[in-house]
Amino acid sequence: MFEAKLQQGVIFKKIVDAIKDLVKSVNIDASTSGLSMQAMDSAHVALVSLKLNENGFKEYRCDRPITLGLSIENLSKILKCAGNDDTITLQTDEEEPSSLKFFFENQQASKISEFSLNLMSLDSESLGIPDTDYSSVIQMSSAEFSRICKELSSISETVEIETSKESVKFSVQGDIGAGSITVKNNQSDKDVDRVDLQIDQPVKLTFALRYLNMFNKAVSLSNTVSLNMSEENPLMVEYKIDELGSLRFYLAPKISDEESA
Amino acid sequence: MFEAKLQQGVIFKKIVDAIKDLVKSVNIDASTSGLSMQAMDSAHVALVSLKLNENGFKEYRCDRPITLGLSIENLSKILKCAGNDDTITLQTDEEEPSSLKFFFENQQASKISEFSLNLMSLDSESLGIPDTDYSSVIQMSSAEFSRICKELSSISETVEIETSKESVKFSVQGDIGAGSITVKNNQSDKDVDRVDLQIDQPVKLTFALRYLNMFNKAVSLSNTVSLNMSEENPLMVEYKIDELGSLRFYLAPKISDEESA
Amino acid sequence: MFEAKLQQGVIFKKIVDAIKDLVKSVNIDASTSGLSMQAMDSAHVALVSLKLNENGFKEYRCDRPITLGLSIENLSKILKCAGNDDTITLQTDEEEPSSLKFFFENQQASKISEFSLNLMSLDSESLGIPDTDYSSVIQMSSAEFSRICKELSSISETVEIETSKESVKFSVQGDIGAGSITVKNNQSDKDVDRVDLQIDQPVKLTFALRYLNMFNKAVSLSNTVSLNMSEENPLMVEYKIDELGSLRFYLAPKISDEESA
Repeated sequence: MFEAKLQQGVIFKKIVDAIKDLVKSVNIDASTSGLSMQAMDSAHVALVSLKLNENGFKEYRCDRPITLGLSIENLSKILKCAGNDDTITLQTDEEEPSSLKFFFENQQASKISEFSLNLMSLDSESLGIPDTDYSSVIQMSSAEFSRICKELSSISETVEIETSKESVKFSVQGDIGAGSITVKNNQSDKDVDRVDLQIDQPVKLTFALRYLNMFNKAVSLSNTVSLNMSEENPLMVEYKIDELGSLRFYLAPKISDEESA
Repeated sequence: MFEAKLQQGVIFKKIVDAIKDLVKSVNIDASTSGLSMQAMDSAHVALVSLKLNENGFKEYRCDRPITLGLSIENLSKILKCAGNDDTITLQTDEEEPSSLKFFFENQQASKISEFSLNLMSLDSESLGIPDTDYSSVIQMSSAEFSRICKELSSISETVEIETSKESVKFSVQGDIGAGSITVKNNQSDKDVDRVDLQIDQPVKLTFALRYLNMFNKAVSLSNTVSLNMSEENPLMVEYKIDELGSLRFYLAPKISDEESA
Repeated sequence: MFEAKLQQGVIFKKIVDAIKDLVKSVNIDASTSGLSMQAMDSAHVALVSLKLNENGFKEYRCDRPITLGLSIENLSKILKCAGNDDTITLQTDEEEPSSLKFFFENQQASKISEFSLNLMSLDSESLGIPDTDYSSVIQMSSAEFSRICKELSSISETVEIETSKESVKFSVQGDIGAGSITVKNNQSDKDVDRVDLQIDQPVKLTFALRYLNMFNKAVSLSNTVSLNMSEENPLMVEYKIDELGSLRFYLAPKISDEESA
C-alpha cells in the first residue's frame, strides 16, 4: 500500500505547474523515505529533480518501493479539480498499479473529490547527478531573479552570469544593443531585498534565457531561489519547499564563440 | 408607449453577457406584467427563458403588448456603452417599432447616453415549456457549481449527476481516468457553503458540460443556483434575480450507452 | 556631453508605451532647454509631439544640441528592464553618437542596470505645427474620455464631437443603430467628475475612433486630457506631464459625406 497525504495540496499543484512546460511524462519513485522524480526536457538540455521527504507529509506510508509513470498534462488536468485549500492524498493498493487514486478534501469536509489517473509504463533513465561543490552560490529573491531573466529576454536569447565577492552581474548582448543588471550583496532582513553571495571562486558562465524563464515558473514555490555555479559544471537552480523538500533544475552552460574560437 | 427603467442597469448587462454565447437573436415580449423571452440555442439542444416582472423596474409602462426582435450581439455592443452604475431605460413610441431606444444615466446625471438599436423581424417560436414537478432540487452556491463544471471539463465532455438524500455526486469518465466530486447537504448560514437538497426521488442523469459551462456565465447574477431534475425530463438551471425575476436554462439529459443498449 | 536623469523613470516608460503603436522610429532632439520629439504615424494621418523641459529633470546637461535616432520598439525593450520605481538616466559622450546609454537605479541603489541602445540615422522631417487659437477647448478626465471612445468604437469607426456652451456631445452612426453620449460642463473639485468647457465658437467635427483610441494609451500619464478644436483645423489632444512637459497628438477631422456632397 502506498498513501501520501499533503496538508497544503496547493504545493503539489504548483510543482506540476512549474515543470509542465519542461517535461511531458515522468516516473515518480515512491519509497519509504518519500517521493522523488528526475526527468530531462525533450531537448535533453535541462534536468528537473524533485525530492519530497516523507516527514513533510501529513500522512505517509509506502510498504515497498513503487514507480508511478505519469503524463504531466493529464496529472495537471486532475489537479485542476483540487481547490487551493484542499488536502491532496495519493493512493494505490496495487503492487504494479495501473492507476493512481487522488483524494481532495476541503477543510469543512463538505466536498470530497476522488479521481483515478491512468498510469503509463515509461523507460526509466538513470540520470546520476554527481554531487558538485559549487564555487559560487547566490541566494536571492525568486521574484527578483525571475524579473531579471524576463526583462533581459527582450534583448537577447542568452545571459552571462558573472560573480564576484560583492556582486553578481547579468549581462546580455543583442542586435539592438547591450546591457547588464548588477545586483549587490545585501544582508537585508527582508527576503525581497536580501542577496546572499558565497563566492569561493568567481565564475563567468552563459545560459539560455528560455530555460531560465521556464525554471522561474517555480517562483510561487519559494520566496528565495539559489543559483549554484562552478566553471564547467551545469548551473543548479534550487527552490526549497518548506519542510517538504526541494525542486531543482540543472542547465549546462553555453560555450561562447570567444571561448570556442 | 413602452418604457422600462432599471435602477441597476448592470443587471441587464449581466443577463445579456450570460446568454450571448448561447443565442444569437431573440424576441423579447413586453406586456403589462413585464418582459419575457424564450429562445433555443442554434443547435436546438438548450433553451433559455427570462422573466422580468414589471414591479422590479423603477418605472414600467406598456400600453399594449409588443415584440422586440433583437440581435444579442448588437444589443451587447450598445450595452457596452452603459456604465456599471448607470440606470438603463428601454423605450419605444411606435406600435410596430423598427428600433428600440436606450437611455443610460449615471448618478450625478452629468453624463447622458442615448442609443437607438435597429430591431429585426424574427419568427417567433412557441416553445411551450410544461410545468414539471421536479423530484430532485439542489440549491447551492452558483460559484461552486460553476467551479465544479469547469474543473470536470478538463477530464470529460459529460457529467453524471446523481442525487441522494444526503449528497449530490458529479462523476466523469474520460480517457485519462475517472473521478467524482461529492457535495453534502449543508445547512450553513453562509451562501457560499450552503447546499440545500430536496430529494423526493433520487435521480442519475448525464449532461453535456459544454452547455452547463455556458449556463454558468450567469454566475454573476445570483449567489445561488438551483438545479431541478427528474428522470426523463430536461434539467432546469435557475438563477433568481432579486425582486426582478429569473433566468432559466433547460437542457435535455444525454442517453448513456448503457441505457440505450 | 548629454545627460538627463529622470527621478520618476516610469514616466518615460509610459510615454514610450503611449506612442509605440503610432510611430516606429523617431528623432529625439536634445538641446539646452530639454528634449523634444515630433513624428507622424506611418499612414501620415496623426502627429505626435513631445516636449520635456530641462527643469523637470533631476539632472540635465546638454553641451550642444544633438539628435538621437531611435527605434521605438527597441527603446521599449530596453525600458522593460527598468523598474517602475527606478530613476532613469540617458547619457552620451559623443558628438555624433552611435549609441545611447541608459542607467536604471532603484532607491536602495542595490541593483544597477546599464544598457546601451544602438541609434539609427533617420531623415528628420520638419513638421512645423502652426500655433492655432482653438475655439473649443474641453478639459475632462482622461479615463472618462478613453472610456467613451472605447465604448463608441463598438458601434462605429468614427465619432462626431459637437460642442456647446453647456456640454459636449459624442455621436456615432452605425449599421446596428445610432447613439450619443453627452457630457455636461461640471465644475466639480474631483478630477474624475470635472468637465471644463471653454467654448468661444461651437464646433462639430468628425474623427476616426481608431486614432483616438491609440492616443488614449497615454491615459496613465495624466488624470486629465484636453481636447482642442476649431473648424477646419486638426484636433489637438494634450496630456500634461507634471512639471516635465506635455505629450500632444494631432488628428485631422474627417470630411463627412454630407459636407462633401
